[in-house]
Amino acid sequence: MVLDVSKQPQLPTTNIIQPQLLAASTDWFEYRVKAYPHQTDYAGMVWHGTYLTWLEEARIEWLRSIGVDFADLVAVGCSMPVVELSIRYHLPISMGVEAVIKTRMVEMKGVRLNLENEVRSPDATILYTTAQVTLVTVDLEKGKVMRQLPPVMKDALEKVRG
Amino acid sequence: MVLDVSKQPQLPTTNIIQPQLLAASTDWFEYRVKAYPHQTDYAGMVWHGTYLTWLEEARIEWLRSIGVDFADLVAVGCSMPVVELSIRYHLPISMGVEAVIKTRMVEMKGVRLNLENEVRSPDATILYTTAQVTLVTVDLEKGKVMRQLPPVMKDALEKVRG
Amino acid sequence: MVLDVSKQPQLPTTNIIQPQLLAASTDWFEYRVKAYPHQTDYAGMVWHGTYLTWLEEARIEWLRSIGVDFADLVAVGCSMPVVELSIRYHLPISMGVEAVIKTRMVEMKGVRLNLENEVRSPDATILYTTAQVTLVTVDLEKGKVMRQLPPVMKDALEKVRG
Amino acid sequence: MVLDVSKQPQLPTTNIIQPQLLAASTDWFEYRVKAYPHQTDYAGMVWHGTYLTWLEEARIEWLRSIGVDFADLVAVGCSMPVVELSIRYHLPISMGVEAVIKTRMVEMKGVRLNLENEVRSPDATILYTTAQVTLVTVDLEKGKVMRQLPPVMKDALEKVRG
Repeated sequence: MVLDVSKQPQLPTTNIIQPQLLAASTDWFEYRVKAYPHQTDYAGMVWHGTYLTWLEEARIEWLRSIGVDFADLVAVGCSMPVVELSIRYHLPISMGVEAVIKTRMVEMKGVRLNLENEVRSPDATILYTTAQVTLVTVDLEKGKVMRQLPPVMKDALEKVRG
Repeated sequence: MVLDVSKQPQLPTTNIIQPQLLAASTDWFEYRVKAYPHQTDYAGMVWHGTYLTWLEEARIEWLRSIGVDFADLVAVGCSMPVVELSIRYHLPISMGVEAVIKTRMVEMKGVRLNLENEVRSPDATILYTTAQVTLVTVDLEKGKVMRQLPPVMKDALEKVRG
Repeated sequence: MVLDVSKQPQLPTTNIIQPQLLAASTDWFEYRVKAYPHQTDYAGMVWHGTYLTWLEEARIEWLRSIGVDFADLVAVGCSMPVVELSIRYHLPISMGVEAVIKTRMVEMKGVRLNLENEVRSPDATILYTTAQVTLVTVDLEKGKVMRQLPPVMKDALEKVRG
Repeated sequence: MVLDVSKQPQLPTTNIIQPQLLAASTDWFEYRVKAYPHQTDYAGMVWHGTYLTWLEEARIEWLRSIGVDFADLVAVGCSMPVVELSIRYHLPISMGVEAVIKTRMVEMKGVRLNLENEVRSPDATILYTTAQVTLVTVDLEKGKVMRQLPPVMKDALEKVRG
């Protein structure tokens, strides 16, 4: 499988969020996590790479919440690799602490989705981490970016976009 | 330990690389890796979070190459958490494939280091991934960003900067 | 920290379960999981090491269910490293599949705990994995196995044992 | 893919090593590792599940050393899942410490391989961990244990067995 996303047309950076899209993304999907020993490092805090597992889990549950089963998608030969990810660590999370991974779609342009995440304390007062993640839809067999979203996904995402 | 990096003065973003600093970063440090099963996912490719383990390992070996032993640094109460990370996945890496993680310092400003990474094929012709990573030096006991770099580190990094 | 558990007196193997202890372990604690992409490998199944993260999470939630907060335990200088682990993989788990991690105490002898795990389908009809895990209680500062369990833990575990 | 290894004929446990097989396994294959932050936990030691990544990497390099490329094996539809694993943690490994993962075949019976591992200090004086791992050869497409080893593998392993 060879997947060349470098030749795909470039999107504007995720910092430039168009106003009409912001309107669509007011609802955050929330996914609860807790920091276990295997996710910590020598400093007693969650290791910085652990957040990518949480973002992924939150993303898949967000998809499920809008009617898309990720395993079903893969079963029909479609995958959604991350092609770009930016993350800022504002405050560390100690072992045993619970947090909420917030997820929302910022933009959908062809087969490219821009999502936004916040990691917050359950009462929302503490902001631990912020992230932007870009995904594309890929044909697993051909190893190529798809020309358009699979219908089930397009329908689900357009409903979210409002 | 409470580490509030959000109140630290903001650096210019890593996209704005000052010319005099670029000159200092011509030498890449290279660290060799290979994709093992535990690093792949259902698509048979390296899972996107695996790259953060490779970047970390490469960073620690780069530090060692300029005379800084990371474990010694931690032993004297100093840590270097990642506070910001951006990564772009240009091409996926299949299981069994070897790659080189290239690392160089782009900027050092107080206790903040901006590093740059490329993941390439051993013959350098294929660019798989690019990343920017920002680290700060933290006092592990106080859980606070240090006012200045530990001397051993400052000396080593200034030599790299030329 | 140097922890030499090899010099500890050897327990009978976990296969020899004493009858009076079996009586105490009829209740399984159940912890629900789901297989996400980061936990799979190239074969599209959960990677065999992933189960150790699930066993750990289940163990910590089991402790919480009997009144022991693991993070609190660590905060007072006590840790519970795994010193022995055996696992058999009967059937693989595919991406997206949900499972239940079942946990119960088989034996408590001094500061050594023998736990038993089963990974089953939510309806309990499929047995994916079985495991035995031995833990000891360690003084984090001294890096040594403790002579006796911390009181909070001893009380909680004796209640479980009945 | 459904893989039912539970119905396979049971081997004698790995503790009962037959004398004629021991003779064949005098040569250990050595694979060097180093403990990085992402592999540690809150106690500043290597997290117990990390060893399974090291055992896997060592196993794949051992296979390569006898002429079997694991990625090639997978490319022709053959996989080698772990079906049983026992590990004892004698002494913990601190961050920054280097170790050697020693691997040797103890027994080959049909498509079942029993391997043995030791994790030692580079000078071999400290024994950190011991492990036994059982693998079977599986047809990835059918999801079933193969009736016999792929020829390339059988030839390579029989040479090792002497």
